[in-house]
Amino acid sequence: MKSASWIGICLLAFSASPGWGAGGESAPSGNPQFTANGQVALPPDYREWVYLSSGLGMTYGSATASRSDHQSFDNVFVSRHAYQTFQKTGTWPDKTMFILEVRSSRTNGSINHGGHYQGGVAAIEGEVKDEAGSPGKWTFFSFDLDKASGTPFPRTAACYSCHAHHGAVDNTFVQFYPTLLPVALKKGTVKPGALADKP
Amino acid sequence: MKSASWIGICLLAFSASPGWGAGGESAPSGNPQFTANGQVALPPDYREWVYLSSGLGMTYGSATASRSDHQSFDNVFVSRHAYQTFQKTGTWPDKTMFILEVRSSRTNGSINHGGHYQGGVAAIEGEVKDEAGSPGKWTFFSFDLDKASGTPFPRTAACYSCHAHHGAVDNTFVQFYPTLLPVALKKGTVKPGALADKP
Repeated sequence: MKSASWIGICLLAFSASPGWGAGGESAPSGNPQFTANGQVALPPDYREWVYLSSGLGMTYGSATASRSDHQSFDNVFVSRHAYQTFQKTGTWPDKTMFILEVRSSRTNGSINHGGHYQGGVAAIEGEVKDEAGSPGKWTFFSFDLDKASGTPFPRTAACYSCHAHHGAVDNTFVQFYPTLLPVALKKGTVKPGALADKP
Repeated sequence: MKSASWIGICLLAFSASPGWGAGGESAPSGNPQFTANGQVALPPDYREWVYLSSGLGMTYGSATASRSDHQSFDNVFVSRHAYQTFQKTGTWPDKTMFILEVRSSRTNGSINHGGHYQGGVAAIEGEVKDEAGSPGKWTFFSFDLDKASGTPFPRTAACYSCHAHHGAVDNTFVQFYPTLLPVALKKGTVKPGALADKP
């Protein structure tokens, strides 16, 4: 199945390995579920997670995609516990998980005949923060649409360096999440200079 | 404050009056909270409700808006209880509440230089189903951005007739909510002919 990459989209960021449950505490719902082979399960209820924002044809590198007639929507969701922690602290807790859902865009359908609305899923990617993870705190995953778990992107993938260099808060593109940026600014967690970055 | 209308957007649909709580049962979280003067409270946590979809510059009437350089995003959220009921039944329960959030779109910011991402809130509207309501089961509300409650649209507003005539399921535009349309088709709750409607 088709699976787009964070290289071109670069909206999220994350890492992998278990940790919750020790000492008897229960893991918050939405924490990443890792498999024995280093993959992460696609959360079946991610569409009920907290929505952060959507873009249409967002372009960080070449502007080719933005000129295309076939721009995609991207919807970003984050686990509820992580969202609630961010609201209090302006930072992402351990085990934060994002899902990036890429959907086709359509114009003519039913009574709509202008602009764009969302069609089928074209790709799903994820991002997990795992402070005990190796080789990095944040890992990106690609989900095949016909499989229940996702595979880590190799550490050489451009999404890692792009998020590390340009993410406004802790490897994530909070500058594009309009309800979170004011929180981060208030809490003082925006990286110095991050909002002035240019392509 | 600026407050756009469902007339042009027509994504949601709903109505008003209390009802839960009789007999000792508790109202599900996310049920509409009405005021004594017929207004409805803006749910402070609606951004944590279930996200249904986003459009950019969607156009039902004149195509002028879709040709504009200043297209708006619209994000649609629905109360969690209503969403979960829809998943089981393909229909909306009493006290269903939607929020339509209209946001500006931006292209150049941080490292983005193509396509569109979301900016500030331009308008918020709501839609409530109230089976005991009068004069209709569904009522649309407009929220001023500096106020905590919304005012019903008059029954003559175009959103009422547009949703009644073209909404795929019970006055709502499920045809534009990609995770819900398959549920409605499976449950057989799509209005006959609704998907073949034209502008």
